[in-house]
Amino acid sequence: MSKFRFAVLASGEGSNLQALIDEVHRRGVASLVLVLSDNEGAMALERARLASVPAVALPPLPREGRKSYHQRVGKVLAAVEPDLIVLAGYMRLLPPEFIAAMPPIINVHPSLLPAFPGLHAPLQALDYGAKITGCTVHLVDKGMDTGPVICQEALPVLPADTADSLHQRLKSLEHAALVRVVKAFALGKVKIIGRKIELEEDTDGNQDSVNQCI
Amino acid sequence: MSKFRFAVLASGEGSNLQALIDEVHRRGVASLVLVLSDNEGAMALERARLASVPAVALPPLPREGRKSYHQRVGKVLAAVEPDLIVLAGYMRLLPPEFIAAMPPIINVHPSLLPAFPGLHAPLQALDYGAKITGCTVHLVDKGMDTGPVICQEALPVLPADTADSLHQRLKSLEHAALVRVVKAFALGKVKIIGRKIELEEDTDGNQDSVNQCI
Repeated sequence: MSKFRFAVLASGEGSNLQALIDEVHRRGVASLVLVLSDNEGAMALERARLASVPAVALPPLPREGRKSYHQRVGKVLAAVEPDLIVLAGYMRLLPPEFIAAMPPIINVHPSLLPAFPGLHAPLQALDYGAKITGCTVHLVDKGMDTGPVICQEALPVLPADTADSLHQRLKSLEHAALVRVVKAFALGKVKIIGRKIELEEDTDGNQDSVNQCI
Repeated sequence: MSKFRFAVLASGEGSNLQALIDEVHRRGVASLVLVLSDNEGAMALERARLASVPAVALPPLPREGRKSYHQRVGKVLAAVEPDLIVLAGYMRLLPPEFIAAMPPIINVHPSLLPAFPGLHAPLQALDYGAKITGCTVHLVDKGMDTGPVICQEALPVLPADTADSLHQRLKSLEHAALVRVVKAFALGKVKIIGRKIELEEDTDGNQDSVNQCI
């Protein structure tokens, strides 16, 4: 197993988590040491168990505030000493104190940020009439989808697209982008200078490709 | 010559205008009937004269308001009866009354809108740390770069990019996109339904390409 340890926070179905299990954890590139969900019924927890990865359901207490809840989340995470935390469909905004106390946290979002932040990004893109959208892996800061970009991949919106069909295609992009970024972290290939982030695996990039994680 | 008539408003260098002269006007796909500039020294006017296209310098009068100025612009335009008006580096916001009185007006912007509207879009993209940007051809409405999207094309931001190098690469994309859209208008291949606009030339699109004007 790799010495590089990452944890995943997930709220839902966990398809991004599954990609990380299959392409990163099972291949020994990095060790998935914990999956934590705020939602006891999250399929993500089941996916973790099936992969023999520790899975913790930690639902918020009644009337528990965001800060207090994330103090509890932080304690559970600290116990497994992750080098990286991945938000994979985690539906809660993280308090600044939590972000400051943790190792790097990354998120994947189904648009080319700063376009279409927040909920229902594929529907936002359709309603705008965008011809191109994509996905973004970014460092998490205290804003909503405002952190420095690590990787973006582009995709055409097709005339017949619905929010669902577009989201499905974006999911595949998200999986690839997220796997690539976690691998790069594990290999020490992520260079962060303010908002400029390079994955050093391919800084000689290919101008013809717009699937650029450079 | 084509019966489809278009006019161009330009403020500056006119490289987008040149693409339209070379690829649309000279090929007889549509007739460029007027180039109008608010800037007497605009190279765009010289490019028009060299192509034997009527070129009008119409600088605003001292203290002339936006609405009053564009009434004069509108009169000049009305005299040549254009079917389409193209903003090619035109640096003034158009008043709603002008837009309402004119045939369709299109603009090209060096970003994937709604990301990076307004001035200095390539620099905005660099400062954000975007990995992918592009260009957008859109219908002009009363907002700043908010109109319905007709065509978008994507481009990777490279690690060594400066605002200038990025803008240069975006210029080539802009030329191709603008030529394509004006041709589509001339051929009656633009289908507008609210914010959803299709260029019917290739609605069978290619999922592998992100240079999508679909």
